[in-house]
Amino acid sequence: MSAVAATLYGVGVGPGRPELLTLEAVRVVGRAPVVAVPATGAEGAGLALSVVESVVDLSEKEIMELAFPMTRDEAVRRGARRAAAGRIASRLREPSDVAFLTLGDPLFYSTFGYMAALVREMAPETEVKVVPGVTSISACAAAAGAVLVEGRESMAVIADPRDTEGLKEALERFDTVAVMKLKGAAREVALVIEEAGLAESAVFVERAGWPGERVLRDVGALAEGDEADYFSIVIVKRSGF
Amino acid sequence: MSAVAATLYGVGVGPGRPELLTLEAVRVVGRAPVVAVPATGAEGAGLALSVVESVVDLSEKEIMELAFPMTRDEAVRRGARRAAAGRIASRLREPSDVAFLTLGDPLFYSTFGYMAALVREMAPETEVKVVPGVTSISACAAAAGAVLVEGRESMAVIADPRDTEGLKEALERFDTVAVMKLKGAAREVALVIEEAGLAESAVFVERAGWPGERVLRDVGALAEGDEADYFSIVIVKRSGF
Repeated sequence: MSAVAATLYGVGVGPGRPELLTLEAVRVVGRAPVVAVPATGAEGAGLALSVVESVVDLSEKEIMELAFPMTRDEAVRRGARRAAAGRIASRLREPSDVAFLTLGDPLFYSTFGYMAALVREMAPETEVKVVPGVTSISACAAAAGAVLVEGRESMAVIADPRDTEGLKEALERFDTVAVMKLKGAAREVALVIEEAGLAESAVFVERAGWPGERVLRDVGALAEGDEADYFSIVIVKRSGF
Repeated sequence: MSAVAATLYGVGVGPGRPELLTLEAVRVVGRAPVVAVPATGAEGAGLALSVVESVVDLSEKEIMELAFPMTRDEAVRRGARRAAAGRIASRLREPSDVAFLTLGDPLFYSTFGYMAALVREMAPETEVKVVPGVTSISACAAAAGAVLVEGRESMAVIADPRDTEGLKEALERFDTVAVMKLKGAAREVALVIEEAGLAESAVFVERAGWPGERVLRDVGALAEGDEADYFSIVIVKRSGF
Protein backbone atom coordinates (compact mmCIF):
# COMPACT_ATOMS: atom_id res chain seq x y z
CA MET A 1 0.00 0.00 0.00
CA SER A 2 1.42 3.35 -0.93
CA ALA A 3 1.34 6.10 1.66
CA VAL A 4 -1.45 8.65 1.32
CA ALA A 5 0.20 12.03 0.96
CA ALA A 6 -0.85 14.99 3.04
CA THR A 7 0.29 18.51 2.28
CA LEU A 8 2.28 20.88 4.43
CA TYR A 9 1.46 24.43 3.36
CA GLY A 10 3.78 27.30 4.19
CA VAL A 11 1.30 30.18 4.23
CA GLY A 12 2.52 33.76 4.04
CA VAL A 13 -0.04 35.88 5.87
CA GLY A 14 1.57 39.15 4.82
CA PRO A 15 2.96 41.96 6.96
CA GLY A 16 0.25 41.97 9.62
CA ARG A 17 -2.85 43.67 8.26
CA PRO A 18 -5.67 41.17 7.56
CA GLU A 19 -6.54 42.89 4.27
CA LEU A 20 -3.10 42.00 2.96
CA LEU A 21 -3.89 38.30 3.11
CA THR A 22 -4.09 36.78 -0.35
CA LEU A 23 -7.19 34.94 -1.55
CA GLU A 24 -5.07 31.79 -1.64
CA ALA A 25 -3.95 32.17 1.99
CA VAL A 26 -7.60 32.54 3.04
CA ARG A 27 -8.65 29.47 1.04
CA VAL A 28 -5.75 27.25 2.20
CA VAL A 29 -6.13 28.10 5.89
CA GLY A 30 -9.90 27.75 5.57
CA ARG A 31 -9.52 24.16 4.39
CA ALA A 32 -6.69 22.95 6.61
CA PRO A 33 -7.76 21.01 9.71
CA VAL A 34 -4.51 21.90 11.51
CA VAL A 35 -3.01 25.39 11.74
CA ALA A 36 0.55 25.61 13.06
CA VAL A 37 2.03 28.88 14.33
CA PRO A 38 5.55 29.53 15.54
CA ALA A 39 5.26 31.03 19.01
CA THR A 40 8.24 33.29 19.57
CA GLY A 41 8.30 36.97 20.31
CA ALA A 42 10.17 37.71 17.12
CA GLU A 43 7.88 35.74 14.85
CA GLY A 44 4.77 37.25 16.38
CA ALA A 45 2.73 34.04 16.73
CA GLY A 46 -0.18 35.87 18.27
CA LEU A 47 -0.06 38.35 15.45
CA ALA A 48 0.02 35.78 12.63
CA LEU A 49 -2.91 34.01 14.22
CA SER A 50 -4.93 37.16 14.81
CA VAL A 51 -4.41 38.29 11.21
CA VAL A 52 -5.95 35.07 9.97
CA GLU A 53 -8.59 34.85 12.69
CA SER A 54 -10.23 38.06 11.63
CA VAL A 55 -10.95 36.56 8.19
CA VAL A 56 -11.12 32.76 8.61
CA ASP A 57 -13.19 30.87 11.21
CA LEU A 58 -10.63 28.90 13.22
CA SER A 59 -13.00 27.60 15.89
CA GLU A 60 -13.17 24.03 14.53
CA LYS A 61 -9.45 23.72 13.82
CA GLU A 62 -6.58 22.39 15.83
CA ILE A 63 -4.24 25.27 16.58
CA MET A 64 -0.71 23.96 17.08
CA GLU A 65 1.50 26.51 18.84
CA LEU A 66 5.14 25.67 18.25
CA ALA A 67 7.70 26.93 20.73
CA PHE A 68 10.95 28.22 19.30
CA PRO A 69 12.92 29.49 22.29
CA MET A 70 15.03 32.61 21.65
CA THR A 71 18.29 31.35 23.06
CA ARG A 72 21.88 31.29 21.87
CA ASP A 73 22.11 27.65 22.91
CA GLU A 74 22.18 25.94 19.50
CA ALA A 75 21.39 22.50 20.96
CA VAL A 76 18.25 23.84 22.65
CA ARG A 77 17.16 25.52 19.43
CA ARG A 78 17.81 22.43 17.36
CA GLY A 79 15.87 20.30 19.85
CA ALA A 80 12.91 22.67 19.75
CA ARG A 81 12.87 22.63 15.96
CA ARG A 82 12.91 18.83 15.86
CA ALA A 83 10.12 18.66 18.42
CA ALA A 84 8.02 21.12 16.42
CA ALA A 85 8.67 19.25 13.16
CA GLY A 86 7.77 15.98 14.89
CA ARG A 87 4.40 17.35 15.97
CA ILE A 88 3.67 18.55 12.43
CA ALA A 89 4.86 15.26 10.88
CA SER A 90 2.62 13.18 13.13
CA ARG A 91 -0.47 15.04 11.90
CA LEU A 92 0.65 14.79 8.28
CA ARG A 93 0.97 11.02 8.64
CA GLU A 94 -2.71 10.65 9.66
CA PRO A 95 -2.93 12.04 6.84
CA SER A 96 -4.09 15.54 7.62
CA ASP A 97 -3.04 18.74 5.87
CA VAL A 98 -1.21 21.34 7.98
CA ALA A 99 -1.08 25.09 7.29
CA PHE A 100 2.04 26.63 8.83
CA LEU A 101 1.49 30.37 9.22
CA THR A 102 4.29 32.83 8.78
CA LEU A 103 4.26 36.64 8.75
CA GLY A 104 5.30 38.11 5.40
CA ASP A 105 6.48 35.47 2.93
CA PRO A 106 7.39 31.87 3.92
CA LEU A 107 10.69 31.89 2.01
CA PHE A 108 11.90 35.32 3.11
CA TYR A 109 13.30 35.37 6.69
CA SER A 110 10.87 32.80 8.04
CA THR A 111 11.33 29.61 10.07
CA PHE A 112 9.34 27.75 7.43
CA GLY A 113 12.43 26.69 5.48
CA TYR A 114 13.92 24.82 8.45
CA MET A 115 10.57 23.26 9.25
CA ALA A 116 9.91 22.05 5.72
CA ALA A 117 13.34 20.40 5.54
CA LEU A 118 12.89 18.58 8.87
CA VAL A 119 9.32 17.53 8.09
CA ARG A 120 10.46 16.11 4.73
CA GLU A 121 12.99 13.96 6.59
CA MET A 122 10.42 12.71 9.08
CA ALA A 123 7.50 12.22 6.69
CA PRO A 124 9.02 11.81 3.21
CA GLU A 125 5.66 11.23 1.53
CA THR A 126 4.56 14.78 2.45
CA GLU A 127 3.92 17.30 -0.29
CA VAL A 128 5.16 20.80 0.52
CA LYS A 129 3.50 23.84 -1.02
CA VAL A 130 4.22 27.51 -0.49
CA VAL A 131 1.66 30.31 -0.58
CA PRO A 132 3.75 33.43 -1.13
CA GLY A 133 2.89 36.59 0.81
CA VAL A 134 3.43 40.34 0.81
CA THR A 135 6.73 41.09 2.56
CA SER A 136 7.33 43.68 5.27
CA ILE A 137 9.59 45.54 2.83
CA SER A 138 6.70 46.14 0.43
CA ALA A 139 4.43 47.12 3.33
CA CYS A 140 6.97 49.59 4.72
CA ALA A 141 7.57 51.14 1.30
CA ALA A 142 3.79 51.52 0.86
CA ALA A 143 3.42 53.15 4.28
CA ALA A 144 6.19 55.63 3.43
CA GLY A 145 5.08 56.12 -0.19
CA ALA A 146 8.68 55.35 -1.10
CA VAL A 147 9.55 53.80 -4.47
CA LEU A 148 11.95 50.93 -3.81
CA VAL A 149 13.42 50.32 -7.27
CA GLU A 150 12.67 51.34 -10.85
CA GLY A 151 14.04 50.43 -14.26
CA ARG A 152 17.47 48.85 -14.00
CA GLU A 153 18.11 49.79 -10.37
CA SER A 154 19.55 47.31 -7.89
CA MET A 155 18.57 46.61 -4.29
CA ALA A 156 20.33 45.06 -1.31
CA VAL A 157 18.57 43.57 1.68
CA ILE A 158 20.67 43.47 4.84
CA ALA A 159 19.53 41.56 7.93
CA ASP A 160 22.72 41.80 9.98
CA PRO A 161 22.71 45.49 10.93
CA ARG A 162 25.77 45.09 13.17
CA ASP A 163 27.92 44.28 10.11
CA THR A 164 28.81 47.94 9.66
CA GLU A 165 31.32 47.30 6.87
CA GLY A 166 28.82 45.28 4.85
CA LEU A 167 26.25 48.02 5.24
CA LYS A 168 28.70 50.74 4.13
CA GLU A 169 29.61 48.75 1.03
CA ALA A 170 25.98 48.11 0.17
CA LEU A 171 25.23 51.84 0.50
CA GLU A 172 28.02 52.57 -1.99
CA ARG A 173 27.11 49.95 -4.57
CA PHE A 174 23.33 49.62 -4.58
CA ASP A 175 20.63 52.06 -5.63
CA THR A 176 18.43 50.98 -2.72
CA VAL A 177 19.32 49.33 0.57
CA ALA A 178 16.74 47.90 2.98
CA VAL A 179 17.99 47.13 6.48
CA MET A 180 15.88 44.65 8.46
CA LYS A 181 15.97 43.29 12.03
CA LEU A 182 16.90 46.65 13.51
CA LYS A 183 16.03 45.84 17.09
CA GLY A 184 18.97 46.88 19.25
CA ALA A 185 20.95 48.23 16.29
CA ALA A 186 18.91 51.14 14.92
CA ARG A 187 21.28 53.74 16.35
CA GLU A 188 24.38 52.19 14.75
CA VAL A 189 22.61 51.85 11.41
CA ALA A 190 21.50 55.49 11.52
CA LEU A 191 25.06 56.60 12.23
CA VAL A 192 26.43 54.65 9.24
CA ILE A 193 23.76 56.20 7.01
CA GLU A 194 24.58 59.71 8.28
CA GLU A 195 28.30 59.18 7.75
CA ALA A 196 27.59 58.07 4.19
CA GLY A 197 25.81 61.39 3.67
CA LEU A 198 22.51 59.64 3.02
CA ALA A 199 20.42 60.76 6.01
CA GLU A 200 18.13 62.76 3.69
CA SER A 201 17.60 59.73 1.47
CA ALA A 202 16.49 57.37 4.21
CA VAL A 203 13.17 56.51 5.75
CA PHE A 204 12.50 54.46 8.88
CA VAL A 205 9.21 52.55 9.13
CA GLU A 206 7.96 50.65 12.15
CA ARG A 207 4.81 48.46 12.39
CA ALA A 208 3.70 49.34 8.83
CA GLY A 209 -0.07 49.39 8.56
CA TRP A 210 -0.67 48.48 12.22
CA PRO A 211 -1.83 50.62 15.10
CA GLY A 212 1.24 52.52 16.25
CA GLU A 213 2.77 52.77 12.77
CA ARG A 214 5.71 55.17 12.70
CA VAL A 215 7.27 56.69 9.59
CA LEU A 216 10.39 58.75 10.30
CA ARG A 217 12.06 60.67 7.50
CA ASP A 218 14.61 62.10 9.90
CA VAL A 219 16.94 59.20 10.46
CA GLY A 220 18.90 61.54 12.76
CA ALA A 221 16.25 60.94 15.42
CA LEU A 222 17.27 57.29 15.47
CA ALA A 223 20.91 58.21 15.82
CA GLU A 224 19.98 60.17 18.93
CA GLY A 225 18.99 57.03 20.73
CA ASP A 226 15.40 56.38 19.70
CA GLU A 227 14.86 52.63 19.67
CA ALA A 228 13.28 50.38 17.06
CA ASP A 229 11.19 47.31 17.63
CA TYR A 230 11.48 44.05 15.73
CA PHE A 231 9.00 45.03 13.05
CA SER A 232 10.94 47.93 11.60
CA ILE A 233 12.98 48.65 8.51
CA VAL A 234 15.19 51.43 7.21
CA ILE A 235 15.06 52.02 3.46
CA VAL A 236 17.82 54.09 1.87
CA LYS A 237 17.46 55.20 -1.74
CA ARG A 238 20.58 56.90 -3.03
CA SER A 239 18.68 59.03 -5.54
CA GLY A 240 16.24 60.17 -2.84
CA PHE A 241 12.50 59.60 -2.62
CA MET B 1 -14.12 76.29 -1.67
CA SER B 2 -11.49 73.70 -0.97
CA ALA B 3 -10.85 71.05 -3.60
CA VAL B 4 -12.50 67.67 -3.01
CA ALA B 5 -9.73 65.09 -2.90
CA ALA B 6 -9.89 61.93 -4.94
CA THR B 7 -7.50 59.06 -4.39
CA LEU B 8 -5.06 57.49 -6.81
CA TYR B 9 -4.46 53.90 -5.74
CA GLY B 10 -1.39 52.02 -6.89
CA VAL B 11 -2.68 48.46 -6.71
CA GLY B 12 -0.27 45.54 -6.74
CA VAL B 13 -2.11 42.61 -8.30
CA GLY B 14 0.66 40.15 -7.50
CA PRO B 15 2.69 37.95 -9.84
CA GLY B 16 -0.13 36.93 -12.18
CA ARG B 17 -2.26 34.29 -10.49
CA PRO B 18 -5.69 35.64 -9.43
CA GLU B 19 -5.52 33.80 -6.10
CA LEU B 20 -2.47 35.86 -5.17
CA LEU B 21 -4.52 39.06 -5.17
CA THR B 22 -4.86 40.49 -1.67
CA LEU B 23 -8.24 41.15 -0.09
CA GLU B 24 -7.35 44.83 -0.17
CA ALA B 25 -6.61 44.79 -3.91
CA VAL B 26 -9.98 43.15 -4.55
CA ARG B 27 -11.80 45.70 -2.38
CA VAL B 28 -10.03 48.76 -3.81
CA VAL B 29 -10.50 47.75 -7.45
CA GLY B 30 -14.09 46.75 -6.69
CA ARG B 31 -14.89 50.28 -5.50
CA ALA B 32 -12.91 52.36 -8.00
CA PRO B 33 -14.96 53.74 -10.90
CA VAL B 34 -11.84 54.00 -13.08
CA VAL B 35 -9.24 51.26 -13.56
CA ALA B 36 -6.00 52.29 -15.28
CA VAL B 37 -3.63 49.71 -16.78
CA PRO B 38 -0.26 50.32 -18.38
CA ALA B 39 -0.39 48.75 -21.84
CA THR B 40 3.12 47.67 -22.76
CA GLY B 41 4.40 44.23 -23.54
CA ALA B 42 6.73 44.29 -20.58
CA GLU B 43 4.14 45.37 -18.06
CA GLY B 44 1.63 42.82 -19.29
CA ALA B 45 -1.44 45.09 -19.35
CA GLY B 46 -3.64 42.31 -20.60
CA LEU B 47 -2.35 40.08 -17.84
CA ALA B 48 -2.87 42.59 -15.00
CA LEU B 49 -6.40 43.18 -16.21
CA SER B 50 -7.24 39.50 -16.64
CA VAL B 51 -5.93 38.70 -13.15
CA VAL B 52 -8.37 41.21 -11.67
CA GLU B 53 -11.20 40.44 -14.06
CA SER B 54 -11.48 36.87 -12.87
CA VAL B 55 -12.29 38.10 -9.35
CA VAL B 56 -13.83 41.59 -9.69
CA ASP B 57 -16.70 42.58 -11.99
CA LEU B 58 -15.25 45.27 -14.24
CA SER B 59 -18.21 45.61 -16.60
CA GLU B 60 -19.48 48.92 -15.16
CA LYS B 61 -16.06 50.51 -14.86
CA GLU B 62 -14.09 52.75 -17.16
CA ILE B 63 -10.98 50.86 -18.23
CA MET B 64 -8.22 53.30 -19.10
CA GLU B 65 -5.47 51.67 -21.15
CA LEU B 66 -2.31 53.73 -20.96
CA ALA B 67 0.22 53.40 -23.75
CA PHE B 68 3.87 53.36 -22.70
CA PRO B 69 5.81 52.79 -25.92
CA MET B 70 8.92 50.61 -25.59
CA THR B 71 11.35 52.93 -27.33
CA ARG B 72 14.80 54.27 -26.57
CA ASP B 73 13.63 57.75 -27.55
CA GLU B 74 13.48 59.44 -24.15
CA ALA B 75 11.35 62.34 -25.44
CA VAL B 76 8.71 59.96 -26.79
CA ARG B 77 8.66 58.05 -23.50
CA ARG B 78 8.41 61.22 -21.45
CA GLY B 79 5.59 62.49 -23.66
CA ALA B 80 3.68 59.22 -23.28
CA ARG B 81 4.05 59.33 -19.52
CA ARG B 82 2.78 62.91 -19.33
CA ALA B 83 -0.17 62.05 -21.54
CA ALA B 84 -1.02 59.04 -19.37
CA ALA B 85 -0.71 61.08 -16.17
CA GLY B 86 -2.88 63.79 -17.72
CA ARG B 87 -5.67 61.31 -18.42
CA ILE B 88 -5.52 60.00 -14.84
CA ALA B 89 -5.39 63.53 -13.37
CA SER B 90 -8.46 64.64 -15.31
CA ARG B 91 -10.55 61.84 -13.78
CA LEU B 92 -9.16 62.55 -10.31
CA ARG B 93 -10.24 66.18 -10.63
CA GLU B 94 -13.91 65.24 -11.21
CA PRO B 95 -13.31 63.89 -8.40
CA SER B 96 -13.23 60.19 -9.13
CA ASP B 97 -10.92 57.60 -7.59
CA VAL B 98 -8.56 55.77 -9.94
CA ALA B 99 -7.03 52.32 -9.36
CA PHE B 100 -3.77 51.94 -11.27
CA LEU B 101 -3.00 48.23 -11.68
CA THR B 102 0.50 46.92 -11.62
CA LEU B 103 1.82 43.35 -11.65
CA GLY B 104 3.69 42.41 -8.49
CA ASP B 105 4.15 45.35 -6.11
CA PRO B 106 3.61 49.01 -7.12
CA LEU B 107 6.90 50.19 -5.61
CA PHE B 108 9.10 47.38 -6.91
CA TYR B 109 10.00 47.74 -10.61
CA SER B 110 6.70 49.28 -11.64
CA THR B 111 5.78 52.38 -13.64
CA PHE B 112 3.56 53.48 -10.75
CA GLY B 113 6.28 55.60 -9.13
CA TYR B 114 6.67 57.81 -12.22
CA MET B 115 2.91 58.06 -12.60
CA ALA B 116 2.28 59.05 -8.99
CA ALA B 117 4.90 61.80 -9.17
CA LEU B 118 3.47 63.27 -12.39
CA VAL B 119 -0.13 63.03 -11.19
CA ARG B 120 0.81 64.82 -7.95
CA GLU B 121 2.19 67.69 -10.03
CA MET B 122 -0.92 67.91 -12.19
CA ALA B 123 -3.54 67.39 -9.46
CA PRO B 124 -1.84 68.36 -6.17
CA GLU B 125 -5.00 67.77 -4.11
CA THR B 126 -4.86 64.05 -4.98
CA GLU B 127 -4.25 61.53 -2.23
CA VAL B 128 -1.96 58.69 -3.27
CA LYS B 129 -2.25 55.28 -1.61
CA VAL B 130 -0.36 52.09 -2.30
CA VAL B 131 -1.75 48.57 -1.97
CA PRO B 132 1.35 46.38 -1.72
CA GLY B 133 1.44 43.09 -3.63
CA VAL B 134 3.26 39.76 -3.77
CA THR B 135 6.39 40.19 -5.89
CA SER B 136 7.55 37.92 -8.70
CA ILE B 137 10.59 37.01 -6.57
CA SER B 138 8.38 35.48 -3.87
CA ALA B 139 6.29 33.71 -6.52
CA CYS B 140 9.36 32.26 -8.24
CA ALA B 141 10.85 31.10 -4.94
CA ALA B 142 7.53 29.43 -4.08
CA ALA B 143 7.37 27.69 -7.47
CA ALA B 144 10.90 26.37 -6.99
CA GLY B 145 10.45 25.58 -3.29
CA ALA B 146 13.65 27.58 -2.77
CA VAL B 147 14.28 29.41 0.50
CA LEU B 148 15.43 32.94 -0.36
CA VAL B 149 17.00 34.09 2.93
CA GLU B 150 17.05 32.94 6.55
CA GLY B 151 18.41 34.34 9.80
CA ARG B 152 21.01 37.03 9.18
CA GLU B 153 21.52 36.30 5.48
CA SER B 154 21.69 39.07 2.89
CA MET B 155 20.12 39.31 -0.54
CA ALA B 156 20.88 41.32 -3.67
CA VAL B 157 18.37 42.04 -6.42
CA ILE B 158 19.94 42.81 -9.80
CA ALA B 159 17.85 44.12 -12.69
CA ASP B 160 20.66 44.96 -15.08
CA PRO B 161 21.85 41.50 -16.11
CA ARG B 162 24.28 42.91 -18.67
CA ASP B 163 26.34 44.47 -15.88
CA THR B 164 28.51 41.38 -15.59
CA GLU B 165 30.94 42.93 -13.11
CA GLY B 166 28.14 43.98 -10.77
CA LEU B 167 26.67 40.49 -10.92
CA LYS B 168 30.02 38.85 -10.15
CA GLU B 169 30.52 41.07 -7.14
CA ALA B 170 27.02 40.43 -5.86
CA LEU B 171 27.60 36.67 -6.18
CA GLU B 172 30.73 37.02 -4.03
CA ARG B 173 29.26 39.18 -1.32
CA PHE B 174 25.63 38.18 -0.86
CA ASP B 175 24.10 34.96 0.44
CA THR B 176 21.36 35.14 -2.18
CA VAL B 177 21.22 36.93 -5.52
CA ALA B 178 18.05 37.32 -7.58
CA VAL B 179 18.54 38.40 -11.19
CA MET B 180 15.49 39.94 -12.87
CA LYS B 181 14.68 41.17 -16.39
CA LEU B 182 16.57 38.33 -18.03
CA LYS B 183 15.07 38.71 -21.47
CA GLY B 184 17.91 38.72 -23.96
CA ALA B 185 20.56 38.20 -21.30
CA ALA B 186 19.85 34.79 -19.76
CA ARG B 187 22.80 33.17 -21.50
CA GLU B 188 25.31 35.73 -20.24
CA VAL B 189 23.93 35.50 -16.72
CA ALA B 190 24.16 31.70 -16.76
CA LEU B 191 27.79 31.90 -17.91
CA VAL B 192 28.72 34.26 -15.07
CA ILE B 193 27.04 31.92 -12.56
CA GLU B 194 28.88 28.91 -13.99
CA GLU B 195 32.22 30.71 -13.87
CA ALA B 196 31.56 31.60 -10.24
CA GLY B 197 31.13 27.84 -9.60
CA LEU B 198 27.54 28.34 -8.53
CA ALA B 199 25.64 26.50 -11.28
CA GLU B 200 24.48 23.87 -8.77
CA SER B 201 23.17 26.57 -6.44
CA ALA B 202 21.01 28.34 -8.97
CA VAL B 203 17.45 27.94 -10.12
CA PHE B 204 15.73 29.56 -13.10
CA VAL B 205 11.98 30.19 -12.93
CA GLU B 206 9.81 31.46 -15.76
CA ARG B 207 6.11 32.40 -15.58
CA ALA B 208 5.78 31.27 -11.95
CA GLY B 209 2.32 29.92 -11.25
CA TRP B 210 1.02 30.47 -14.79
CA PRO B 211 0.37 28.01 -17.56
CA GLY B 212 3.75 27.29 -19.10
CA GLU B 213 5.66 27.64 -15.81
CA ARG B 214 9.24 26.44 -16.14
CA VAL B 215 11.59 25.62 -13.27
CA LEU B 216 15.13 24.78 -14.36
CA ARG B 217 17.68 23.62 -11.82
CA ASP B 218 20.26 23.14 -14.53
CA VAL B 219 21.35 26.66 -15.28
CA GLY B 220 23.73 25.12 -17.82
CA ALA B 221 20.75 24.69 -20.16
CA LEU B 222 20.41 28.46 -20.24
CA ALA B 223 24.09 28.87 -21.01
CA GLU B 224 23.57 26.65 -24.05
CA GLY B 225 21.33 29.20 -25.65
CA ASP B 226 17.89 28.56 -24.19
CA GLU B 227 16.06 31.88 -24.03
CA ALA B 228 14.10 33.48 -21.22
CA ASP B 229 11.02 35.62 -21.49
CA TYR B 230 10.35 38.82 -19.57
CA PHE B 231 8.70 37.07 -16.63
CA SER B 232 11.68 35.07 -15.47
CA ILE B 233 14.19 35.18 -12.66
CA VAL B 234 17.37 33.38 -11.68
CA ILE B 235 17.88 32.86 -7.96
CA VAL B 236 21.36 31.92 -6.74
CA LYS B 237 21.83 30.83 -3.14
CA ARG B 238 25.48 30.35 -2.25
CA SER B 239 24.75 27.74 0.41
CA GLY B 240 22.56 25.77 -2.03
CA PHE B 241 18.88 25.00 -1.79
